[in-house]
Amino acid sequence: MSAHRTVFFVSDRTGITAEMLGHSLITQFEGIEFKRVTLPFVDTHEKAELVAERIRQTGINDGARPLVFSTFVKNDIRDIIHIPEAHVVDFFEAFIEPLEAELGKESSHTVGKSHSIENFHEYNARIEAVNYALAHDDGIKPSDLDSADIVLVGVSRSGKTPTCLYLALQYGIKAANYPLTPDDFGQPGLPKALLPSKHKLFGLTIVPERLSQIRAERKPDSRYASIDNCRYEVAEAEAIYRAAGIPHLNTTSKSIEELASTIVHKFNLARRVY
Amino acid sequence: MSAHRTVFFVSDRTGITAEMLGHSLITQFEGIEFKRVTLPFVDTHEKAELVAERIRQTGINDGARPLVFSTFVKNDIRDIIHIPEAHVVDFFEAFIEPLEAELGKESSHTVGKSHSIENFHEYNARIEAVNYALAHDDGIKPSDLDSADIVLVGVSRSGKTPTCLYLALQYGIKAANYPLTPDDFGQPGLPKALLPSKHKLFGLTIVPERLSQIRAERKPDSRYASIDNCRYEVAEAEAIYRAAGIPHLNTTSKSIEELASTIVHKFNLARRVY
Repeated sequence: MSAHRTVFFVSDRTGITAEMLGHSLITQFEGIEFKRVTLPFVDTHEKAELVAERIRQTGINDGARPLVFSTFVKNDIRDIIHIPEAHVVDFFEAFIEPLEAELGKESSHTVGKSHSIENFHEYNARIEAVNYALAHDDGIKPSDLDSADIVLVGVSRSGKTPTCLYLALQYGIKAANYPLTPDDFGQPGLPKALLPSKHKLFGLTIVPERLSQIRAERKPDSRYASIDNCRYEVAEAEAIYRAAGIPHLNTTSKSIEELASTIVHKFNLARRVY
Repeated sequence: MSAHRTVFFVSDRTGITAEMLGHSLITQFEGIEFKRVTLPFVDTHEKAELVAERIRQTGINDGARPLVFSTFVKNDIRDIIHIPEAHVVDFFEAFIEPLEAELGKESSHTVGKSHSIENFHEYNARIEAVNYALAHDDGIKPSDLDSADIVLVGVSRSGKTPTCLYLALQYGIKAANYPLTPDDFGQPGLPKALLPSKHKLFGLTIVPERLSQIRAERKPDSRYASIDNCRYEVAEAEAIYRAAGIPHLNTTSKSIEELASTIVHKFNLARRVY
């Protein structure tokens, strides 16, 4: 066995899909060092020949067959990459023919149906959602939460901003966020600004020790970051969620993807971007 | 043929990979209306049984076999979904065995190697990059572009902000952005603040008509949005790119994914997030 395996993600488009699925697959193999190379926009015979040669050469240098994960829509370009000196997996090739049989239709073999800007409506929804998230970050304008698809609630540094931005960019969903601050605590019920949005609130919570650690990176030795204060804020925020019946999630051991897909599923929101 | 086909994206995790690849496949089939349903976190036998029943029922209601795209790591749960009443494609199943043979190793069949927070280092890189992008949006602190991996340059509304946020969230790359304004035009060379970052500048440009349209949504009937002014600003920005030899791209017909992967590839940056 060689010291490492080189993994190529190759596509006639961005290669992002090949990267994602290929990554999911290789992380199932522990104890092997993978060296990753992404080669996007391989959309001509000439580029494909160069890539094939590079893969061949890498295999010789590594002393081990490279893995190649690809997503080619055009058969002729895919065939150039499909060299015996590598373990080549094309994610389209494997599935498109059975799908054609199932749907009783030929596929269009057209590059760029996904991740292309041809769908202006989708593009605009996305940009609008990003601008919305930026304009409504940290409750700048709580008055017009009306147009939000969803409002994330939580104490400072509990993960609201990255989750809102992810929802905007990857789903085209308008997510506002409202920070719970000490002003909101110690009084019964929801903060007044949130009452009209009650049906679309989602609460984030976090383990106080982790919160303290995150805040300390920002403001070391502050009351803001102190473990006592973090415990107090988290307990108060959770009390609000429970009293108002707001669905909530602990972000401590969740990725942004997990938070986003949980929220989208919970509120039965439609993905506007693929 | 039925009026539509229902497509299920099912996973024991977020389902995002299944959505992406499944979407890429079905967009190859024109003229069929697909109804999409994502079912994430199907991680127990009980949940899987319910999903299988729902798929079965949907097929009866639709009068056409549903398509099911899944990414299950555990064989036993995958098998429950693999019903004859649907066209089921599991993206892991198809590739994991050949990979095991190629690598001479069994896969771990462990849920959650991707999109999990277990890699704190990756998580922190990502959050840091998001905070960086927010703090350096619209050149708020051009003085400390030092720590940027990349600096996007372009006129207002040319696509800098969404691209920076995408690079941060999806790649963990620190992208700052510097808006070119009329102050920067009409003088020779790069704006002074950008000189130390010259090697990591990437320029965005856009068709003036499209820019005018985007700006008009924000400030209708303004000089800012007028076609004459947009033409002037775009011409000046492009003159700066050419004079300084800055690589640049026209964003008009590019998706955010295309912009991001082009930039990452161009500067040979390493993806820090999967």
